[in-house]
Amino acid sequence: MTVSKKQAFLGTFISSKNPKELNYHHDSLVCVDEEGRIVKVDTKGVKQDQIGDRLLKTLGWELSEVNLHIAKPGEFFFPGFVDSHVHASQYPNVGIFGKTTLLDWLEKYTFPLEASLKDLGKARRVYGSCVRRTLSHGTTTAAYYATIDVAATNLLADLCLELGQRALIGRVCMDVPDICPDYYRDESVEEGLEKTRRTIQHVQKIDPEFKLVSPVLTPRFAPTCSRESMKGLAEIQKELDLPVQTHISENEGECDLVAKLFPESESYTHVYDDCGLLTSRTILAHAIHLSEKEAKLIAQRGSKISHCPCSNSSLTSGSARVRWLWDKGITVGLGTDMSGGYSPSILEAARQAALVSRHVAMGLQEEKERSKLTVEEVLYLATRGGAEVVGLGDRIGGFEEGMEWDAQLIRLGSVDQDGIAAEDGNVSVFGWETWEEKVAKWLFNGDDRNVQSVWVRGRKVHAR
Amino acid sequence: MTVSKKQAFLGTFISSKNPKELNYHHDSLVCVDEEGRIVKVDTKGVKQDQIGDRLLKTLGWELSEVNLHIAKPGEFFFPGFVDSHVHASQYPNVGIFGKTTLLDWLEKYTFPLEASLKDLGKARRVYGSCVRRTLSHGTTTAAYYATIDVAATNLLADLCLELGQRALIGRVCMDVPDICPDYYRDESVEEGLEKTRRTIQHVQKIDPEFKLVSPVLTPRFAPTCSRESMKGLAEIQKELDLPVQTHISENEGECDLVAKLFPESESYTHVYDDCGLLTSRTILAHAIHLSEKEAKLIAQRGSKISHCPCSNSSLTSGSARVRWLWDKGITVGLGTDMSGGYSPSILEAARQAALVSRHVAMGLQEEKERSKLTVEEVLYLATRGGAEVVGLGDRIGGFEEGMEWDAQLIRLGSVDQDGIAAEDGNVSVFGWETWEEKVAKWLFNGDDRNVQSVWVRGRKVHAR
Repeated sequence: MTVSKKQAFLGTFISSKNPKELNYHHDSLVCVDEEGRIVKVDTKGVKQDQIGDRLLKTLGWELSEVNLHIAKPGEFFFPGFVDSHVHASQYPNVGIFGKTTLLDWLEKYTFPLEASLKDLGKARRVYGSCVRRTLSHGTTTAAYYATIDVAATNLLADLCLELGQRALIGRVCMDVPDICPDYYRDESVEEGLEKTRRTIQHVQKIDPEFKLVSPVLTPRFAPTCSRESMKGLAEIQKELDLPVQTHISENEGECDLVAKLFPESESYTHVYDDCGLLTSRTILAHAIHLSEKEAKLIAQRGSKISHCPCSNSSLTSGSARVRWLWDKGITVGLGTDMSGGYSPSILEAARQAALVSRHVAMGLQEEKERSKLTVEEVLYLATRGGAEVVGLGDRIGGFEEGMEWDAQLIRLGSVDQDGIAAEDGNVSVFGWETWEEKVAKWLFNGDDRNVQSVWVRGRKVHAR
Repeated sequence: MTVSKKQAFLGTFISSKNPKELNYHHDSLVCVDEEGRIVKVDTKGVKQDQIGDRLLKTLGWELSEVNLHIAKPGEFFFPGFVDSHVHASQYPNVGIFGKTTLLDWLEKYTFPLEASLKDLGKARRVYGSCVRRTLSHGTTTAAYYATIDVAATNLLADLCLELGQRALIGRVCMDVPDICPDYYRDESVEEGLEKTRRTIQHVQKIDPEFKLVSPVLTPRFAPTCSRESMKGLAEIQKELDLPVQTHISENEGECDLVAKLFPESESYTHVYDDCGLLTSRTILAHAIHLSEKEAKLIAQRGSKISHCPCSNSSLTSGSARVRWLWDKGITVGLGTDMSGGYSPSILEAARQAALVSRHVAMGLQEEKERSKLTVEEVLYLATRGGAEVVGLGDRIGGFEEGMEWDAQLIRLGSVDQDGIAAEDGNVSVFGWETWEEKVAKWLFNGDDRNVQSVWVRGRKVHAR
């Protein structure tokens, strides 16, 4: 889980300063200790032949004890992406959704696949491919939904630890007989809570300090969860101070169903709040059809939102209003939401967040321009925003001293004088672009081919 | 331009039967003559050891005189894609559009780049990269806008012929002083028409029968074109029976501008009709904000529409209603519209067409479900729809006898028992998927890595 050697990274570092601005630090040096922690950031123009000198002076490190990583011209380091909402168990279904919307999509495609993962051989195959695939796209942290099955969920935790992806591991809780299928649900409130504890204990055993993987309480969403099971999860949350993840206000039919099932709660958001699940450690996926009042309550509780644009367009769920959520003071990150979303890539989610914000703008009479998200803003969502959503804002998402080295090395393609692409991949740099334009090109045409290397807590977990 | 040998292709062939259905022909044999024409399609279950026998019996061909291409298990042949609206000259700007919309985007990013391509070295680099890039994504036919420059536009025609991409080559006509920048416009109506004829003559010289490349009359869009220049182009259209391409009703500001500039015409569509440009060979890009009456007029004239979803979302232009256009009896294809659209891929355009149709649905009170486009429908737009839009519906877009062999060989990725991807690319086939599901996976996660080979008129023009 840790690297045994000190490391130093030299080159261009790009990261979010704030939602509006990216930092561009060229000829900079970032030093990472054996625990994967960034111990020194030197942005004052470091040349390759000065590295030894700087390391010795600032850290007392001998060059010989340090693994050096030097970015080539045109390459840059970028913080690893955070996928704040993803169903690892649904990975084999990406792209398969037909013309369904949420509720029939669950019945037709999703529950049968999830249920089938109690076969551990199949689970290993599906989870292995999901973790490898998302790592290859630069996702260094993922908030995963697994299935209701304890053994398969624990296997996902094992695989994340083994393959080196930082992850929140959620055993899915769903216990309502009329809504969950007979073949796929917790048999009682008690059984559900007990199974949830078994996954928590497993993660405590394999990573006691939650350095890389941590459990996350995962009531699927209000319609599938009894009030008693949600209250039980809220008690575990308080007892162990764990994160929580669930879905909220994704689809209009779902919202109607929640109103019908929970007539005593004032709103969908109040259902969770009434059960004690609307905490500052709660990740709410989607949040499309919220009322003003609900958004205010979420802001007040400090709960976070995972915006899943690719999924929301695919399943015709609606267009979440990120600017509106931000205006309320709510922290927002991005989720691929596979397989409601078809893409394993948070870069694609950032791209779709830009497009969806334009669809939001098209539906407005005023504040059209303001509601559109910039390149900088969607990349903020993909890194720092997501880091805050999963409760790791102080540890990942940027390149500050004290943070951990979760990073990707990006290489963009170039074209020669005849227009022949020098590298594989769809980003074509002609040479006259500004750095801002290169980043825009990467956002809109980049893919996993541009991701040369990926590190989590200092450990190299993927390379092309 | 032609291949000198007979060819036969064995394997699975998938193509649009109609907008609602794909044909899946397994173990089939398609025979292509030296001119690139499909002369025999045998879908009655052909085994590899039967090929010689079938060729001899049906065509009198000896196996020894035939180049055989046998698809591997899991691979399939698909018709080449048609990009019915793309600005080759803007390729270096893909992804660079900031928060602009059409009119400021033209001023800020587009006109300066286009003007700079009068430098033929730069034009060779830009056009070479655009043609190579789109070929690598399976685009076998493109309706190109070049620039106002004759020599650079003619170079684009030369490059398409050399690299083997079927193309419509448009020299851009724009002559209105107050709207076109001083540094980038035709100096007079006469000069514009004369320059247009020079490109037509060039294409007639290099490909007299327009077998691969053909000229297309290209008034940029009404605001940049004087009524006289549009009428002059309409005369050339009648004289030479050439295709026409232009933009229509992309952006609300543009629509207002057209109403102001052409007060004597009843609508934007009537401007073109009044000038004689609304022909059955006319390709209209975008067509977002059309009135019922305009759509009816377009249907009546038999003009075609190129839907550019990626561009329309990126530039906040709006969401074109494909189902509504189809209901009017209008033929629709897809355009990447680079660099309003960021992607060189028609597969991505098809994906975005599916998403945009869902955004259209979200804005409707009724017919929500109907307005959503299926996998089959967007792949129809990408092939047969586009072929009809560019006036080649009888020659390309399918695998019927008498058509020409414009095709791509698609290979999807697979994952092993540990979830390790066996091939590069983002499509993961686990093995239990139906063919329909495999095609859906390809639509939503496929890219140029899945395009193993590309042929145009029987000539192999790209291979990985």
